[in-house]
Amino acid sequence: MDPSAFRRHGHELVDWIAEYLEHPERYPVLSRVRPGEIAAALPSEAPEAPEAFGAIMADFERVLVPGLTHWNHPSFLAYFAITGSAPGILADLLSAALNQQAMLWRTSPAATELELVTLGWLRKLIGLPDAFEGVIYDTASIATMHALTAAREAAVADVRTRGLAARADVPALRVYCSEEAHSSVDKAVIAIGLGHDSLRRIAVDDSFRMRADHLQNAIEEDRRAGRLPVAVVATVGTTSTTSVDPVAAIADICGRECVWLHVDAAYGGAAAILPSHAHVLAGADRADSLVVNPHKWLFVPFDLSAFYCRRMDVVRSAFALTPEYLRTDETGAVHNLMDTGVQLGRRFRALKLWMVLRSFGAHAIREHLARHIELARELAAWVDADPDFERLAPVPFSVVCFRWAPRGLGDEETERANERLLHAVNDTGEVFLSHTRVRGRFALRIAIGHLNTRDEHVRGAWNLLRACAARLANASA
Amino acid sequence: MDPSAFRRHGHELVDWIAEYLEHPERYPVLSRVRPGEIAAALPSEAPEAPEAFGAIMADFERVLVPGLTHWNHPSFLAYFAITGSAPGILADLLSAALNQQAMLWRTSPAATELELVTLGWLRKLIGLPDAFEGVIYDTASIATMHALTAAREAAVADVRTRGLAARADVPALRVYCSEEAHSSVDKAVIAIGLGHDSLRRIAVDDSFRMRADHLQNAIEEDRRAGRLPVAVVATVGTTSTTSVDPVAAIADICGRECVWLHVDAAYGGAAAILPSHAHVLAGADRADSLVVNPHKWLFVPFDLSAFYCRRMDVVRSAFALTPEYLRTDETGAVHNLMDTGVQLGRRFRALKLWMVLRSFGAHAIREHLARHIELARELAAWVDADPDFERLAPVPFSVVCFRWAPRGLGDEETERANERLLHAVNDTGEVFLSHTRVRGRFALRIAIGHLNTRDEHVRGAWNLLRACAARLANASA
Repeated sequence: MDPSAFRRHGHELVDWIAEYLEHPERYPVLSRVRPGEIAAALPSEAPEAPEAFGAIMADFERVLVPGLTHWNHPSFLAYFAITGSAPGILADLLSAALNQQAMLWRTSPAATELELVTLGWLRKLIGLPDAFEGVIYDTASIATMHALTAAREAAVADVRTRGLAARADVPALRVYCSEEAHSSVDKAVIAIGLGHDSLRRIAVDDSFRMRADHLQNAIEEDRRAGRLPVAVVATVGTTSTTSVDPVAAIADICGRECVWLHVDAAYGGAAAILPSHAHVLAGADRADSLVVNPHKWLFVPFDLSAFYCRRMDVVRSAFALTPEYLRTDETGAVHNLMDTGVQLGRRFRALKLWMVLRSFGAHAIREHLARHIELARELAAWVDADPDFERLAPVPFSVVCFRWAPRGLGDEETERANERLLHAVNDTGEVFLSHTRVRGRFALRIAIGHLNTRDEHVRGAWNLLRACAARLANASA
Repeated sequence: MDPSAFRRHGHELVDWIAEYLEHPERYPVLSRVRPGEIAAALPSEAPEAPEAFGAIMADFERVLVPGLTHWNHPSFLAYFAITGSAPGILADLLSAALNQQAMLWRTSPAATELELVTLGWLRKLIGLPDAFEGVIYDTASIATMHALTAAREAAVADVRTRGLAARADVPALRVYCSEEAHSSVDKAVIAIGLGHDSLRRIAVDDSFRMRADHLQNAIEEDRRAGRLPVAVVATVGTTSTTSVDPVAAIADICGRECVWLHVDAAYGGAAAILPSHAHVLAGADRADSLVVNPHKWLFVPFDLSAFYCRRMDVVRSAFALTPEYLRTDETGAVHNLMDTGVQLGRRFRALKLWMVLRSFGAHAIREHLARHIELARELAAWVDADPDFERLAPVPFSVVCFRWAPRGLGDEETERANERLLHAVNDTGEVFLSHTRVRGRFALRIAIGHLNTRDEHVRGAWNLLRACAARLANASA
């Protein structure tokens, strides 16, 4: 495809995408294909001869589009709703064309320095102090893995060189997080060789927040048993109920106990740009590291995870390593971002953060987040006002956990009724909700986060839930 | 930015990129900015008010473009030259707009199944048997880290649960690779808690290939010393000289010794699609895992690393973990790709592999690779024929390592002369070469891999080298 063909097909594709972004209602939000259907519709070998772009796009529309679950649909209310906003999409196009590698400063000064600048912008917006240096990773899972690797580096002498095995001088290690923390913490302790047993999950209070007193007791108990506390992961916006751990109280403990504090603010950290929600990061200035995901609630297309660290030198002592073929004159005078992690190759991700922040401006981003939070409050009020529904958790941000609780149903029946209700609403194709479990109960979960999600979408989802519930109740009556 | 503004700016951006792709010669290949220059030209805070896309693009051109090192320039001959080809760029645009998450099958059936299908296409093209299951990671660094985590899982009882620390039953572990293997192997053993000392680098032969007999001796020696051999990383296309380890002989040893064999074919694996080079993966059918990077030499924009594994169940037993909020009805009936690694969120990367393979067709890709290899052979012949230059390594693929070796210069002077020569050619802005060290000697390195690199670019680089060398020789005479 030469540049003139690129120009032609690029224009066609931009038009297709504009249509796609304009008319999401054409598609069922949750894909309706059955497992294996897409794969069966595609040839089992690559073609020998080149195929026309039009033919590829025709197959895309015929075979792949029915297999899309529409994350960029305003009635996508599952998991954490995210947005690939228009300026972010354009930035990703440019990033693919430039194909920069932000591994060494010299392999892309622009990508390297724009990363530092835009992370500085975001740091100020969420109110973290200057002492936090930033780096972009792909996902919060990788960010948390790096945080815990740095914690291990700080806690265990010579661990980079000597590792953890066959060392009489290294006791069993401990990492702490709440019962509600994300599974990426489990994966991180497994990956870095601490083992799943090293992760001690601390009980939560009535609002699903880590009990700081339990944390303190657990650390003391572990020290008495000869274990070495290495890190605490506090969460600002847990995945089920978006609860906020008491970061300040946890920071007090970590400071006293000399334990690395990592704050997983992947979702909730974005809300700190609102004066009304700045408090959710109270105490995070004393954390050792923090992750917030602009691809979650800041309208940046996936993937872009912002990692901030007050002790980036520890991350670098864990990972920096320069073979001859990557040595440059600038070494020492600049930060080569490959030194801050496992990954050598690094996309030009800062471009989309830059374009999104400039194109929206901070004021408009605050307004969108405030609107999402307000929509969630309204929904929570509707749930609270309906005697057939029951809210299962507080609503600190823009996620509401609740269940259908028709009178006269036993516990088991209520569980099954909610599962059926979830299927029924998702089967309509009009919305996509997901579920979780709150204090052992099956919970419906509505997450408001897409840029274009407005009152009518949330109201529509609520009306649909009630209509489906009425139908299910009648059917079983 | 509403859909109609997206359409307008999208068209403008497509035109900008078409121009960019058409006239790379407008730019110096290696950026000429000084450290800090870009950052200093940008504001230190995000704007409050929205800015026009035109203003953002104007700043992009004014501030960022001078800070780009042009990876998508046909005279980029450094590191491994890569290409963001036109169909790959368009696919990445589409991927950003769709914003799919290929974590669970249901969160994107299309992304999940297209990943399996396109990895099947690539697997057949490079001649790996059906027994290899594939998954896409971002980088080979992450792929190798996962391979070594799986090797650890296979070798150490209960390591997922109990980790490596404070275990009397776990001896010191060993991973082997050649002296020429990539630094990502070092980073992987550090990250997963084995420690840098666990990595034993095996000597290479005259052609920079791992000595299988030395590997055998090292494993035996380590066993006698009570260490546990866990994995061998063999490289097909090392980073300095693109040497190819004797994979078949290494596979024999790994089979006998029950040690995990991971093949790092990030660069060289692509060449196996050529009948003339299929032999570079001889023996890899007996590897446990293999990585090849379509973003390196298959014209796919960064990042897309293809990981193949004959024992993906071991990767899954190391990592699979499903919290309630990610549980779906399909669990069991489908592969949820989040089970195959640390990262939960996963971009729709398969789309660009699909579009590139279809748009080019396998035949044309083979022709491009064969052409690159032929260009490297020609360059090697010019080097060999010039009494002032000396080739430092064989040329199995499309990379040539050599040095300027004017008569009468001592060793130290020759080193410095080559450093000066490298600066001189890169300072012209006409080409970008990098260097390495071969048997202790500073080596110039020309890597041919960009789609549009043709005879005139390689000849131009060679003529420029000779002209700069002559100028330097005259200046010091």
